[in-house]
Amino acid sequence: MMHSQSNTITDSLNIRKVYDMSLLNGKSYDWLDHLSNEIGSRLSGSYGAEQAVQYTKAELEKLGLDKVWLQPVMVPKWTRGGREFAYVQTGPGETRNVNITALGGSVATGEGGTKAQVIEVQGIEQLKEYGKENIEGRIVFYNRPMRADHIQTFDAYGGCVDQRYSGAKEAAKYGAVGVIVRSMNLRMDDLPHTGSMSYGDTPVKDRIPAAAISTNDAEYLSSILKIQKDLKFYFKMNCEQHEDVESYNVIGEITGTKYPDEIMVVGGHLDSWDLGDGSHDDGAGVVQSMEVLRLFKEIGYEPKRTIRVVLFMNEENGLRGGKKYAEVAASKSEEHIFALESDAGGFTPRGFGITATDQQFNKILSWKGLFEPYLIHYFKKGGGGADIGPLEGGDTVLAGLRPDSQRYFDHHHAANDTFDAVNKRELELGAATMASLVYLVDKYGLGNISNDSAELPD
Amino acid sequence: MMHSQSNTITDSLNIRKVYDMSLLNGKSYDWLDHLSNEIGSRLSGSYGAEQAVQYTKAELEKLGLDKVWLQPVMVPKWTRGGREFAYVQTGPGETRNVNITALGGSVATGEGGTKAQVIEVQGIEQLKEYGKENIEGRIVFYNRPMRADHIQTFDAYGGCVDQRYSGAKEAAKYGAVGVIVRSMNLRMDDLPHTGSMSYGDTPVKDRIPAAAISTNDAEYLSSILKIQKDLKFYFKMNCEQHEDVESYNVIGEITGTKYPDEIMVVGGHLDSWDLGDGSHDDGAGVVQSMEVLRLFKEIGYEPKRTIRVVLFMNEENGLRGGKKYAEVAASKSEEHIFALESDAGGFTPRGFGITATDQQFNKILSWKGLFEPYLIHYFKKGGGGADIGPLEGGDTVLAGLRPDSQRYFDHHHAANDTFDAVNKRELELGAATMASLVYLVDKYGLGNISNDSAELPD
Repeated sequence: MMHSQSNTITDSLNIRKVYDMSLLNGKSYDWLDHLSNEIGSRLSGSYGAEQAVQYTKAELEKLGLDKVWLQPVMVPKWTRGGREFAYVQTGPGETRNVNITALGGSVATGEGGTKAQVIEVQGIEQLKEYGKENIEGRIVFYNRPMRADHIQTFDAYGGCVDQRYSGAKEAAKYGAVGVIVRSMNLRMDDLPHTGSMSYGDTPVKDRIPAAAISTNDAEYLSSILKIQKDLKFYFKMNCEQHEDVESYNVIGEITGTKYPDEIMVVGGHLDSWDLGDGSHDDGAGVVQSMEVLRLFKEIGYEPKRTIRVVLFMNEENGLRGGKKYAEVAASKSEEHIFALESDAGGFTPRGFGITATDQQFNKILSWKGLFEPYLIHYFKKGGGGADIGPLEGGDTVLAGLRPDSQRYFDHHHAANDTFDAVNKRELELGAATMASLVYLVDKYGLGNISNDSAELPD
Repeated sequence: MMHSQSNTITDSLNIRKVYDMSLLNGKSYDWLDHLSNEIGSRLSGSYGAEQAVQYTKAELEKLGLDKVWLQPVMVPKWTRGGREFAYVQTGPGETRNVNITALGGSVATGEGGTKAQVIEVQGIEQLKEYGKENIEGRIVFYNRPMRADHIQTFDAYGGCVDQRYSGAKEAAKYGAVGVIVRSMNLRMDDLPHTGSMSYGDTPVKDRIPAAAISTNDAEYLSSILKIQKDLKFYFKMNCEQHEDVESYNVIGEITGTKYPDEIMVVGGHLDSWDLGDGSHDDGAGVVQSMEVLRLFKEIGYEPKRTIRVVLFMNEENGLRGGKKYAEVAASKSEEHIFALESDAGGFTPRGFGITATDQQFNKILSWKGLFEPYLIHYFKKGGGGADIGPLEGGDTVLAGLRPDSQRYFDHHHAANDTFDAVNKRELELGAATMASLVYLVDKYGLGNISNDSAELPD
């Protein structure tokens, strides 16, 4: 697709309007304030999650969209119960408290807690090396840190998160009685970071409790273990898995004027972990996605294609919302040409990760110059997001907003994922960046269905 | 200058080493911790400033540089005295306290404070419009906000800071008795932001006190003025200008192995305002500049040209350090081929602003690909920094590190410019980015003196 000069000027002006509206009269920060400070954490199945459904639906209804609806979805309900407690015991009466948090989906310890010797490993692969003789009856302590030399912190996360997700399942095979995982955090601090874990097909009776420990306490535990290998670690957790409950994806739509059957999705997830208020993960993505549609209404841009905001439920511990949305879309044979997710924090946007054919990717790349005034420079193949992942296949181009990642894991799934950690301008720039890409996709298509070619004379 | 492929590979590997060393074994964050938390604010002429001189000199001496020395410079000494106090009075006994801070260089109010009616203006140019009849005997309230629609916040700052710098001098001409300036801050909050101001050639007896007011209180004052034009504003300030005192630029050097007479400077400023601890402005620039030299030592890179770290004194209220350094350099006929300043906060680095000829700029631009793995994308003509500004002219290429600017003015010159606002990784990435550019300048020169061409066969 060649850009005529007049198109480029029109696009530049429209994109400038989008950024101006977001920065001068944005709504994303106020919405996030409410979501974070009035509602708070939004774990699937919690009262907060249901409040968030009702609140965002009501806010979308104020925007004058063509449709707003709730899409029912059954979600898992896991509760933390009373706060966790843990200490290291180096001798009779000689204990030091450490900061832990139950991993999402973990079973509780027994009423009296779990107390055992500890074996430290650098990862799952080391279990085999130690074998049952060294692991049985012990607590496995996974302590492989995130690598600081990765420039993109998500790469460092990807290199460690197997310990959190599969650590308990694997350690149980060797007879471990519990699992402690170093928090997925590049900072040294006292905050434990929760997150999802899975027992896979481990029989219920063999499931062992799993907790994250703060990075500072992981360092402490590791150093004291070097001196005293037979120390005891005690932890008590009160978490519980309940029956699934009904919840909702919240969806709003501006119906396309020319190709209403071509759907572009923009979304984030409504649920959050329960420790902070989920401002970065993923309150930011929720309000930015809502803002995309509001910006179009405010600047008076009427999309040719249909734009849907989808606020997914249950990204954190089940992905039921994302799966349900894709399932319903498939059952209705809806044509999704594009899906854009924001789920990497509300920090300064840098660009997009994009899953597309070479041709489609190059088309998006041809728009790069339009983003330069906004310091958006990152357009790389690969990426999208967990919630839009189930839409992959067919012709859907997937994209994920890529904000600056340096501070993200300081807050991710921890008690300091709170409103004060979000900068208003950074949040607003992200919303405008998303809206600008959606605008261009709407205007020029992505070549994934025949309507695009019909537009060349446009 | 053409890059051979083997050069590109060597450069990639060396730059990777620089980033690894900074991220895995960096010293910048520890240095900043000391500077911010052990020493604290470092206003020129203060005890903190002198401690910072001694500390950084001692730390540089530990690095095994070829030379470390202090360069004496006389600096202004202005003290705040007891904390400022201000209120708005809307009726007898009806007052509301507001948050102000004396601008650096302001005179004090009288012993009993200054109390007067207020006239709000949107800028200096509006004084003429109101004229002496509306201004005389009143306090002028400059309330033009920073524009949120600028993508780079320094542009918004540049569009407002004349109110702070020249507002008192100009208002005095119309008989104003004081000046209150809306803080240079894009956020709405309660923190007043200080900064330098000048009376120019206003006779001492005609100088009027000038303070910054927090953005929240500026909004309050503006809105209440709409209802009650004759309200009174009271403020009391205790600041004082003293005799100049002796202080120092702190300088360290790795002498070039091949072209010792070609000097590359990397620097930031040691002094800070007195409200926070100057972590972003410019503790970050100081420790990043020190780190550049340390990184070269650690990775065993021996520069062909001389690299000097210069920690300038008195950038904030006089620029005496920057002027002195350039003056001494000129008196010794030193050849400065390059100067790089970090004075825009310790946030994620995005690139550089560069003052150079087209040819020199294009040479630097040819290195851009080497920075791509580190998400450094911004190379624009123009820029440098206040302290290296006096080196301009002759052949010196000037460059300023450009970190992400969105959060900078949330902290700039305010009580929340503190250590906790600096992210360790962001700081370290900045140091590595600076070191990488200095490495390339050292290796390939900038074509400003004849030695470069001699190197082509290298």
